[in-house]
Amino acid sequence: MALILTFLGKGGTGRTTIAIATAKKLAGLGQRVLLVGQDPTPAFGLLLGASPGADAQDVGANLQAVQLHSTLLLERSWEEVKNLEAQYLRSPILKNVFGQELGILPGMDTALALNAIREYDKSGKYDAIIYDGSGNQDTLRMLGMPEILSWYFRRFRQVLTDSDVGKTLSPFIQPVTSAILNVSFSGDSLGKSSNNESAELLEQGKSAIADPHRVASYLVTTDNPAAIATAKYLWGSAQQVGLTVGGVLLNQSQSTEAIATEFEPLEVNSLPNCATPAELIDALPDFKQARKAPRAITIDIPARQVRLFLPGFDKKQVKLTQYGPEVTIEAGDQRRNIFLPSPLNGQSVKGAKFQDRYLIISF
Amino acid sequence: MALILTFLGKGGTGRTTIAIATAKKLAGLGQRVLLVGQDPTPAFGLLLGASPGADAQDVGANLQAVQLHSTLLLERSWEEVKNLEAQYLRSPILKNVFGQELGILPGMDTALALNAIREYDKSGKYDAIIYDGSGNQDTLRMLGMPEILSWYFRRFRQVLTDSDVGKTLSPFIQPVTSAILNVSFSGDSLGKSSNNESAELLEQGKSAIADPHRVASYLVTTDNPAAIATAKYLWGSAQQVGLTVGGVLLNQSQSTEAIATEFEPLEVNSLPNCATPAELIDALPDFKQARKAPRAITIDIPARQVRLFLPGFDKKQVKLTQYGPEVTIEAGDQRRNIFLPSPLNGQSVKGAKFQDRYLIISF
Repeated sequence: MALILTFLGKGGTGRTTIAIATAKKLAGLGQRVLLVGQDPTPAFGLLLGASPGADAQDVGANLQAVQLHSTLLLERSWEEVKNLEAQYLRSPILKNVFGQELGILPGMDTALALNAIREYDKSGKYDAIIYDGSGNQDTLRMLGMPEILSWYFRRFRQVLTDSDVGKTLSPFIQPVTSAILNVSFSGDSLGKSSNNESAELLEQGKSAIADPHRVASYLVTTDNPAAIATAKYLWGSAQQVGLTVGGVLLNQSQSTEAIATEFEPLEVNSLPNCATPAELIDALPDFKQARKAPRAITIDIPARQVRLFLPGFDKKQVKLTQYGPEVTIEAGDQRRNIFLPSPLNGQSVKGAKFQDRYLIISF
Repeated sequence: MALILTFLGKGGTGRTTIAIATAKKLAGLGQRVLLVGQDPTPAFGLLLGASPGADAQDVGANLQAVQLHSTLLLERSWEEVKNLEAQYLRSPILKNVFGQELGILPGMDTALALNAIREYDKSGKYDAIIYDGSGNQDTLRMLGMPEILSWYFRRFRQVLTDSDVGKTLSPFIQPVTSAILNVSFSGDSLGKSSNNESAELLEQGKSAIADPHRVASYLVTTDNPAAIATAKYLWGSAQQVGLTVGGVLLNQSQSTEAIATEFEPLEVNSLPNCATPAELIDALPDFKQARKAPRAITIDIPARQVRLFLPGFDKKQVKLTQYGPEVTIEAGDQRRNIFLPSPLNGQSVKGAKFQDRYLIISF
């Protein structure tokens, strides 16, 4: 299992340059590193000083790089979908649609990227994977996907099980959906956690993203006010998807102290202005701080309390509701539905306060 | 109907600053302008010098601004989905799921943004809508959505109609899917173009995006090589989704001539370095050049030829295939399936050449 690192921050703050330097630093320390570029433009290769392809290839000692091609990834995933279909349907209908015809819709790029990163991780070939994504809300949507998608399946399974339509359709779609989507329509299996592959993938994804030994992000900012505001916002938003933010990289500026106050308790590393690649690599931290950073969520069952770390927001920007069967936290244009273990599961919220950047919910 | 303008380019080249200046320029000329910000962070408000909300509000004479909130847009769209469902299903199953619970999955941000822009356009309140999106491939995925989604519906309708599963499920899902998705499973309606609302929306979207009087984009770059390479790549990629690129805005640089050669035949406007807002507004073009820019696709029925303008790519980066019933063009990590009018429809490709940045296909 690799440590997966990514960088969040406003465009133009030097995220890609820092991602490349990080990959080189860790490779220089003897780790087997993969640098994953999401940006399909030639800018990624120009900054890297190499021509990465759609499959991982060597670009230095201990260092491989790949530039994701969504069209190719979609083609490969489509073959897997067709194989699954052929297993479960007597007369497959998708066999006549070719992966080479499929266009890319919004969201596919990051969904395919997440799957590609998962496979690179699983390959066991890498100690560290550096993901150079869009570094904004889209990267957070990607890393939030396992949790949000699990919620959609959990919620809609229940709704369908309870419905007339679900009961009518059940014999027709049960085999396929239970295999692919972990959606079971038969009442008796409701509530049981399925042990099929896709459900397990989502669970594995969720726990990896919540574990700072597996996945961590670092904020990149200059001393430009818009860049600082963006970094602070992304800090809070990262917590909303359960992602640990390990520290701050202050690029092209020396005013570390003023910035440090804004991002307490995170460590702020100042990167020298107009640094040579070697100077930049030296100035980077060791990327182990994430293990000490505040956790996004802590569930304290004896105290009947849930604590969420939500920096970067003020009280008015955080909303707590209980419309459906779960508690919903809204902040940073993202909603998180908190699935609580028993005995808190299904309980009503007794109280909530926003204190010292923590939302504390009592049950 | 408004003119919808957006800016493409590498992060940090000044796209948001230019979008704001464009909105102010057009408002100053007496047009009723709406500035739409996709970025949810406070950076948008900081650069604008106002605090835009989730609904359009006045921020100057003739000028309104909105900062899109995906959670809110999803809530509102969910209400519409529930209303549709209630019309078509005797026992609606979605009524127990609340819009306020729904998390945001990848792709939802841009899909919801496209719908919001469509509604602002339809309102008749604006002469120009300036969309400040991510300015990269994601903005192109968004604007490519009507065409790609139409293809998916067209292709899968045919596949389902031909299948055993489609025939079995038809009586159950026909009413809902034909209303919502324009997917008809009954053989007799295949091939007929449906006149329902969603199909019409996609058609309207496709023709708006292909029409430079309705939708146009401008490239933003500095003289940084990575920024120039990104702009060139996005130029070609924009053609792949049928979007017109009207011109180039060269920010923070005076080396117009060297850049102009790279982007011929587009006009390059040089924007002064460290300009005041008023100087920037003066230096902007009138945004009418898009009408003279090369069209992304020309279909010449008498000559039995299709011509695609694909700048920014070389011959090796452009792929032409015919796997399914349509011709597929692959370039810039995007696929475009070309739906040809009769008598070219269904014909085999006789020849193709890539000449002077045009892909010319003969049938």
